[in-house]
Amino acid sequence: MTLDQPADAAAQHDDTPFAELDPDEQLRRMRHSAAHVLAEAVLEMFPEAKYAIGPPIDNGFYYDFDLPRPLTPEDLTVLDKRMRKTAKRNVPIQGEWIPKAQAREIFANQPYKLEMIDEIDDDTVGHFTHAKFEDLCRGGHTERTGQLGAFKLTHSAGAYWRGDENRPMLQRVYGLLFPTREELDAYIEAREEAERRDHRRLGRELDLYSTHEEYGPGLIYWHPKGGRIRMEIEDAWRKEHIEAGYEIVFTPHIGRGELWETSGHLDFYADGMYSPMDVDGNDYYMKPMNCPFHVQIYNNTRRSYRELPMRLAELGTVYRYERSGVLHGLMRVRGFTQDDSHIICTPDQVEDEIVSVVEFVLHILRLFGFTEFEARLSTRPEKSVGDPEQWEMAEDSLRRALERADLAYEVDAGDGAFYGPKIDIDLTDTLGRKWQCSTVQFDFNLPERFDMSYIGEDGAEHRPYMVHRALLGSLERFFGVLIEHYGGALPLWLSPVQAMVIPIADRHVDFAHHVQRELRTQGFRVDVDTSGERMGNMIRRAQLQKTPYMLVIGDREVEAEQVSVRDRSGDDLGAMPLFQLTDRMVDERDSRTYQPPV
Amino acid sequence: MTLDQPADAAAQHDDTPFAELDPDEQLRRMRHSAAHVLAEAVLEMFPEAKYAIGPPIDNGFYYDFDLPRPLTPEDLTVLDKRMRKTAKRNVPIQGEWIPKAQAREIFANQPYKLEMIDEIDDDTVGHFTHAKFEDLCRGGHTERTGQLGAFKLTHSAGAYWRGDENRPMLQRVYGLLFPTREELDAYIEAREEAERRDHRRLGRELDLYSTHEEYGPGLIYWHPKGGRIRMEIEDAWRKEHIEAGYEIVFTPHIGRGELWETSGHLDFYADGMYSPMDVDGNDYYMKPMNCPFHVQIYNNTRRSYRELPMRLAELGTVYRYERSGVLHGLMRVRGFTQDDSHIICTPDQVEDEIVSVVEFVLHILRLFGFTEFEARLSTRPEKSVGDPEQWEMAEDSLRRALERADLAYEVDAGDGAFYGPKIDIDLTDTLGRKWQCSTVQFDFNLPERFDMSYIGEDGAEHRPYMVHRALLGSLERFFGVLIEHYGGALPLWLSPVQAMVIPIADRHVDFAHHVQRELRTQGFRVDVDTSGERMGNMIRRAQLQKTPYMLVIGDREVEAEQVSVRDRSGDDLGAMPLFQLTDRMVDERDSRTYQPPV
Repeated sequence: MTLDQPADAAAQHDDTPFAELDPDEQLRRMRHSAAHVLAEAVLEMFPEAKYAIGPPIDNGFYYDFDLPRPLTPEDLTVLDKRMRKTAKRNVPIQGEWIPKAQAREIFANQPYKLEMIDEIDDDTVGHFTHAKFEDLCRGGHTERTGQLGAFKLTHSAGAYWRGDENRPMLQRVYGLLFPTREELDAYIEAREEAERRDHRRLGRELDLYSTHEEYGPGLIYWHPKGGRIRMEIEDAWRKEHIEAGYEIVFTPHIGRGELWETSGHLDFYADGMYSPMDVDGNDYYMKPMNCPFHVQIYNNTRRSYRELPMRLAELGTVYRYERSGVLHGLMRVRGFTQDDSHIICTPDQVEDEIVSVVEFVLHILRLFGFTEFEARLSTRPEKSVGDPEQWEMAEDSLRRALERADLAYEVDAGDGAFYGPKIDIDLTDTLGRKWQCSTVQFDFNLPERFDMSYIGEDGAEHRPYMVHRALLGSLERFFGVLIEHYGGALPLWLSPVQAMVIPIADRHVDFAHHVQRELRTQGFRVDVDTSGERMGNMIRRAQLQKTPYMLVIGDREVEAEQVSVRDRSGDDLGAMPLFQLTDRMVDERDSRTYQPPV
Repeated sequence: MTLDQPADAAAQHDDTPFAELDPDEQLRRMRHSAAHVLAEAVLEMFPEAKYAIGPPIDNGFYYDFDLPRPLTPEDLTVLDKRMRKTAKRNVPIQGEWIPKAQAREIFANQPYKLEMIDEIDDDTVGHFTHAKFEDLCRGGHTERTGQLGAFKLTHSAGAYWRGDENRPMLQRVYGLLFPTREELDAYIEAREEAERRDHRRLGRELDLYSTHEEYGPGLIYWHPKGGRIRMEIEDAWRKEHIEAGYEIVFTPHIGRGELWETSGHLDFYADGMYSPMDVDGNDYYMKPMNCPFHVQIYNNTRRSYRELPMRLAELGTVYRYERSGVLHGLMRVRGFTQDDSHIICTPDQVEDEIVSVVEFVLHILRLFGFTEFEARLSTRPEKSVGDPEQWEMAEDSLRRALERADLAYEVDAGDGAFYGPKIDIDLTDTLGRKWQCSTVQFDFNLPERFDMSYIGEDGAEHRPYMVHRALLGSLERFFGVLIEHYGGALPLWLSPVQAMVIPIADRHVDFAHHVQRELRTQGFRVDVDTSGERMGNMIRRAQLQKTPYMLVIGDREVEAEQVSVRDRSGDDLGAMPLFQLTDRMVDERDSRTYQPPV
């Protein structure tokens, strides 16, 4: 019996021939049967092995074993071969229901199986066999071992019995399994590509950032090269925001408990907040969000309708508690810089503002080279604040904005926050993965709680609308997405080193520095490789660093006052005068064009 | 007797004629006698008044009274007049030493005097009189009331008897006093000027920033207009740093206790740190300094001498505890952004680095319009870490850097931090006040504590030198200094609104917007005043906001496609075509010229 098996998989009673099952069920069964075949092979290799559970999982299967020694990669190769033999022999897989007492005899030497038998609330248990292998199992198998498709054992890893760290540590052997060899290969290729693009790996190899577990996990240190990228992102972000009529503000990272009581965060967001610090006998909290601070700026003076819409934006670093187990590189962290904005406006203005924001989201994400987007509209949940008419108006304006922006969207009915409906926008990266970065969200809560108001044209006080929005979401996470999307080979404008000048011999170093200076006057980030190593090494190193341009300088170049240009894909662009290269690079940078490496 | 009187002022035994005393002592006596003359006037006005103490202070004097009702500004005018009368009468001031018993009779109705008599450790007490006025006093007076110089009562304020909030609240009347009318007027003028330039007042009037006591005093909220100024400062700072070979990094605002233990901050800087937060059972602290984080970036990988000097810079926001009583606007706060950098280099490089840093400090401060500087070199204190030879070398290099930069400096022998010698650089503002912003400081401590090293040309491990430096010091404080230096009328490049377009009538609004758009394409921050008010009001409002240029648009301007330009000093620069104005403004902005308002 495989514990992790979904409850609806009481498919053992389903006598439908394998060939007639739907493809998902077929695949599930192939994976489950492969787990049995794996267990058989392990028991052959270690007759004293204790075997535990072996369910189908996404992309394959695993089985947990208690073994006399750790498995080596060589063991996996042997096991893989034995499994193939069993598959080739194409023996039938059979199941029957037997009394618990009989099962206890069969599994007398298998403590994990005995434990499971004790826990089954029935008089009989499933007993599945193929060749000489026997397992305690609820079923859901192929008819024969020849129907397993294409599989491959990948690795083994420790796993506590029942995930309980007080129970024995078992060895979990993982395998991939797909219906065909082609599908298996494609999956492996995609996974390797994802690993090559893994931002944690590239972050290290390209020296972009680090974390320091011992001084606090989930806290990002941006290295010089990461800092250069961050500044480009920030500069572009600020420029675009200022042009779009936003005002940039800067607010503290901490606030007294009273602020978070009034805002309600201590009620509804306490789990995400750090414990308080004591200052002069008062509790202070690090900010998990910027909103209440922006509200203070708004509330600092009496406001008139003439001042609206007011669009306050901040690159505000917030700190949120996350369990250490879920932290993941740049993607899930404990401190991050939100590109946060709060738009405060009159009811008349809200729809146009929402439309502009949605268009602005797409404009900004396109700057960074993303082209595919999907949206989700989350509407009023059962428990909510604010009056239903406002909700309806807000949801309508979100919907119309999506339609006017011609953006495909799904509706998650009832999935909005209690304080307002929202749009989330996913972008799709090169590998087809979706990342939720942008969000546009109404807030009917804070304007009430902080008693925000403006004097209308009628001279009376009114409550403004407030819309939160983040475009990149978190700079850290967006940085991670960018790294993976481009596999580290960022567009020229974002590249930390835009060109590496490579003098072939010492006598070319002067001219190399001249080239560097010239490019720097155009604002380019250019290094000279003065290692004195062989040209091939220097080029290779620059390529590994994903440097967009390598400018090789030898006798001919010095004489002709030219540079020989290679790009990071390995293409030789030939020799050209410096002005020609500069023009090309300026165009590429300023248009934010992306020349992908082949 | 005046309690607050300095102990060395037992000048009553000094029979030197007043005219022969040194000017400081003369002034002290004039101020002290004026306090007596004030008390006399108050007792005339309120015969039931209880009078307490009345010492000379910087710039004048005060006297504390227990009165039947609060004093009004009109009362002060009356008191001032009566004092002048007494001065004119030029009566002698006389003192004698009388037995305590006699004094108790004289002051039988004066509980504060009685309390002081009881506390005097002597058999006799001083008894000073002029006309009918009697005071308990240790002396130190002019000979006659005609020698008081030029004085002026300024205001009254509450003050607890003996500064103890459990004792009665008295009314303290303050007066200014200088030897001559000219000196008094000059002081009042300077003080009014300082008040007009007070960054807290201008910060409010120009809507630059706010603090919110109830949510945490000493925490700065930069408003949109302050944010514009900050971005200009940050952009200029980053650009200059990148050109000077610095690398910009970004590090977290919190770190685990282990970091601060290793760095030593928990030992030697705990008072300046906030109390810890608990995260997963570990103590985390907000950073009071950026140094340990920059060290982690350095230590992240093995370093070679080829990578040095490494200049890591950050606009890093730090949080330091300050008592709430010492907080003062932007000048003394609890959270501020340091323009911090750490230069890590080999011993060979250190002197050149120091010279560059000192020149860089002056270069940066000059960008912001400061021209007068003074330096202080603080050398090895008794308790110090690091070997004496290193100290000597470090002090020498600091000294030579000051000399090479041709910067006047004092030496504060023994006043360096325990971990290294330093230079502090003061700038002088328009009012002649000195502000310490920049500091350049050796650190022999952190490289040891964090075991920093690099591989030298010899293939062996070496300990690098580390130099901390901040140029602006704190962005918040520097912002305050800038506001006061310029009285809010910032140079064009820093002005939050660089030009205000003022259409005289509705029919000029279109052209006004055209002018705005044109100037915006040149990167200018330009508003249009669409209030529809009278031209005079609009101009006045823009002037009060210290807007550098006001561009008036009327029929003539629309017809001739010109703008009529006024600057904030009120000068009418006449009508000119837009391109001419743009050229002028671009020049002024890009050269960072300052046109002071008259």
